[in-house]
This record gives sequence, C-alpha cells and structure tokens, in this order.
Amino acid sequence: MSYGGIEAGGTKWVCAIGTGPGDLREVVTFPTTTPEETIKRAGDFFTSDGSVAAVGIGSFGPIDLRPDSPTWGRITTTPKPGWASIDIASALREALQVPVAVDTDVNAAALGEHRWGAAVGLDTFCYITVGTGIGGGGMANGRLMHGLQHPEFGHMRIPHDRERDPFDGVCPYHGDCLEGLASGEAIRARWGSAAEDNSDERVWSLEAEYLALGLVNAITMLSPQRIVLGGGVMKQPQLLSLVRARVSSLLAGYISARELDGDLSEYLVRPVLGDRAGVLGSLELARESV
Amino acid sequence: MSYGGIEAGGTKWVCAIGTGPGDLREVVTFPTTTPEETIKRAGDFFTSDGSVAAVGIGSFGPIDLRPDSPTWGRITTTPKPGWASIDIASALREALQVPVAVDTDVNAAALGEHRWGAAVGLDTFCYITVGTGIGGGGMANGRLMHGLQHPEFGHMRIPHDRERDPFDGVCPYHGDCLEGLASGEAIRARWGSAAEDNSDERVWSLEAEYLALGLVNAITMLSPQRIVLGGGVMKQPQLLSLVRARVSSLLAGYISARELDGDLSEYLVRPVLGDRAGVLGSLELARESV
Repeated sequence: MSYGGIEAGGTKWVCAIGTGPGDLREVVTFPTTTPEETIKRAGDFFTSDGSVAAVGIGSFGPIDLRPDSPTWGRITTTPKPGWASIDIASALREALQVPVAVDTDVNAAALGEHRWGAAVGLDTFCYITVGTGIGGGGMANGRLMHGLQHPEFGHMRIPHDRERDPFDGVCPYHGDCLEGLASGEAIRARWGSAAEDNSDERVWSLEAEYLALGLVNAITMLSPQRIVLGGGVMKQPQLLSLVRARVSSLLAGYISARELDGDLSEYLVRPVLGDRAGVLGSLELARESV
Repeated sequence: MSYGGIEAGGTKWVCAIGTGPGDLREVVTFPTTTPEETIKRAGDFFTSDGSVAAVGIGSFGPIDLRPDSPTWGRITTTPKPGWASIDIASALREALQVPVAVDTDVNAAALGEHRWGAAVGLDTFCYITVGTGIGGGGMANGRLMHGLQHPEFGHMRIPHDRERDPFDGVCPYHGDCLEGLASGEAIRARWGSAAEDNSDERVWSLEAEYLALGLVNAITMLSPQRIVLGGGVMKQPQLLSLVRARVSSLLAGYISARELDGDLSEYLVRPVLGDRAGVLGSLELARESV
C-alpha cells in the first residue's frame, strides 16, 4: 500500500509516493504556475504510478479547513494571483478517485516531525517555518492544531522599534506583523539583497530579535514542549543560536521548566526531516485518512 | 455526591460545595493571607461539610502541572511573598483525604464556561481574564491547554508605542509585556487611580489597543472558535465594544471565517457564569477527577 503526498507551496510543489522516510519511492518537484496546470501535473504524477491509496496535501494558505464548510479545502485570502478560492482537494479527488486529505503545509510538516522526526512522543509542540513567508502549526493535546480555521503564526503582532528598524514591513494585510518584519521577503525588501547572501551581523541580530519575540509569544500562549524551526531563512548558520539566546533572555526565567534552562538547544530545534518534513507529513496525512 | 471547588486567587479564595450553577450549596470567600492559614481555612470549610467526594482547585500561578514532576501542583515563580513552592494540592489532599485536582484559575474558568456557559460545544477556545493581572487558558482539541506547563498569555510581547504611551510597564519579569501594559495594576500605576473609577476616554482607548493586540495574537496562534473575556477590568462598560472594533480592524480581513465578520459580538464574549466561572469550573475539575 502506497500513499501520495503533496507539499503544495506558493513557489513549488513537491509530490512523493511512498510510506515514509525509509520508503520514498518517487519524488518530483515543479514550479507553482496556474492552478489548472499545477494540479494537473500532480494528478498525472500519481495517475502514472497507479498505486496510491490516498493523497495527503500540505498546502500554503490560508485554507478553509472546517469540515462543515461548503468551501472546505479551498485556499481563501491568498494574495497569490489566480489561487484564491481554488479547491485543490476536490480537483485531485476527482482526478484520482482516492481519498484526499488536506491541511496546512506547516501542520503537515509538524505531523511528519511527530511521526519520524524532532517531535516524536510529544503531544503539544509547534512547527514554525521561516522562509519566503512565516507559518506555524503543530499539535495541541496530541492532535494537529485547528479551531476556527488554522493557526497563522506569521500574522501575530510583535514589538517593532522603529528607531532601530524604520522598515514598514511587507505584509499586504498588516504591514509590520511578524511575517511583515522577519520573513525572507522582508529581509530582501529591507536590506536589498537575498537573505542567503547576507552575512552582515546587523541583518541577523535584527532577524533573531523578531523571531525570538514571536517564539516567546508561542511559548507563553501555547506552552509547547518543543518548537521545531524550519524554512530557508533558518538555514543561515548563525541564526538559530542567536534566536535561542534571545528567547532565553526575553523569557527572563519566568516559566519554570527544565527545558527552558540552559541554551535551549533541545527546545528550539531544526527539523530532523529537513526539507522533506512537509511532503513526508503529507504522506502521513494520507495514511491517517484511510 | 457533592464536590468542592476552590478558586485560589492571589487576593482572595472562593470555596464552594455543590455540583454546578443550579446546585451551589455553600460558597465562602476569604482573603489570601499566608499559605498555612489560607489552606487551613479552605480545608476546614470542606471538612465541616463532610460531603465532598473530591476537590478541584483553579489556582493562580505559574504552577507546576506536569504529572511526572516531583514538584507537581506547586506554585513556582510567583512574586507573591510566601507562596513560591507552596504545594496547595497535597496539603488539601492530606487534610481532606479525597482526590484533589489542580489546574490554573483560567483553565478552571474555561472548563466552567465549556460545561455551562459561553463555550458549550466548542473544542478550541480561549478564556482570558483581565484583572489585577492578565491570564489566559482554554481548550485545544477538546481538552484544557497544557504542554510544557500551561499558557501564560499575560506575558506575551505586543507592540508598545512609547510616543503614545511612555509608561514602562509593571511586570517584574518583562516590563512591558501584555500584563505589564494592560493589567489593572498597570492601569493604576500609569494613570494614578483605580481602573474602575476612571472614565477618561484615553484610558480605555489605550487599554483596548493593548488587549486587541493580545487577542489578535491569540487568534493568529490558536485559531480559537471563540474568546471569553472575564476579570474585573473587563467590567468597564465601554471596553468590550472598543476591543471588538480594534480586533476587527487589526485583523484586516485576513482570516476568512463568518465568526470574524461583523462586530464580533458572538466571537469576543463575556463569561456566562460571570465571576462564578472559576469556582464552578473547579467543581467540574473535581468531578472529572473521580
């Protein structure tokens, strides 16, 4: 029995067939173009294999995840041209005639890390990705975080010292929310070069400040047992240790837990599955749906 | 079969015997003095009745709620003199020889509202209290929010425009965290008079701004189906409608859900159980423990 997984991103889609990290039979990656073309390409990939019993999708969003909603499975307010109101799940279900499960990209990645990675055995944790945008999800009480819709960590508000950083932020909805100030897009817009190419100490100390404020808010609101930090921006070599140090100093010893003592190296961690967390978690979404 | 409930606050304790809002046989309230005296008074109250099968405690905190911890049930880093490391639960269990369940005051109130009040039928919601301090709890996926310890909403960081409000905040750990800026204690320290006596428009528009920022962070991080707002400060008559309007404008239409359309009057609500939410929820904690 094989499953299909799709990490449906705003820039690229990763599709895989298999059952887990040790059995990943085929993986393809292609750019996100029009909805019709992109969904057809994914459908063709799974059809040509012919063996998948179900497909899981970890999608960019926001996406309507309310089981009782007439627009379930649709991308809602995305600024990405052409993708608003697109129903990825139904289109693939019709094309493939198998069950299709859908969740956010970050909840899928969280599920992957829970099954095989940095969150095995935990019941309340976060997975946060810092890339072109900032997203967050995870589990609370042993199940993926849902509710009214799904978490949108990137859009929390954090302190913004305009004397230190007069940049207005890039979020089209909120300006200087966390994503507006600290996403890869914000770094490029503020500093004028790609984040990956920039080793300026000021860039990364400011980035660490904003991410640490966001993480402190996640810690005070959710009390996660661990936070997994993925995404392209987090690959910058010195960033994670700067973030750990700043989170520790912002918490100021208020919350008593041995996990928050010391250098936080067991508490704020990288995904064990690396860039494969999303697509592997999507396979697990598929498996759980049947 | 009766249960005992204790709303163990930093200023006063409310103890009740009964099974719910329609059957609240006895209620006493007394000031929080020394741990020994306060715990003994609660113990004597339940002993003299003799009928309680279990006691539930909704306590001020932070409190150690990890079932595997050697310091389970103890108040941890409170600045309240004499109360750090006090083990309320064990002391009462020994005195009464019945099961004793403990959770935070806000989780207890959330449980009460879930059983009988504003959160019946919901599985992911928040209960936030704005009083002397600010606390938050609730349910995620149908169970009270726990994790590393428990949520500490009051200590999230929010934007603080020092030109509009040069006040440094009153939190001894974090200065201008949400509680530091918007608790009843902060209002008194900033404006020089008790919050309840102050009808100055500037006081309440600033208060609404901070609370709205905190609520937006709760919405983006937890995606609650509803938020219940209790506590003494929230009794100020114009505050709730100011908060609703500001939350709506800060969200800026980003999250698609009918609950977030309109004036939020069904989304940001007062506790149906009013000031009894905590002690009634504590009864329910007791009932669930046996």
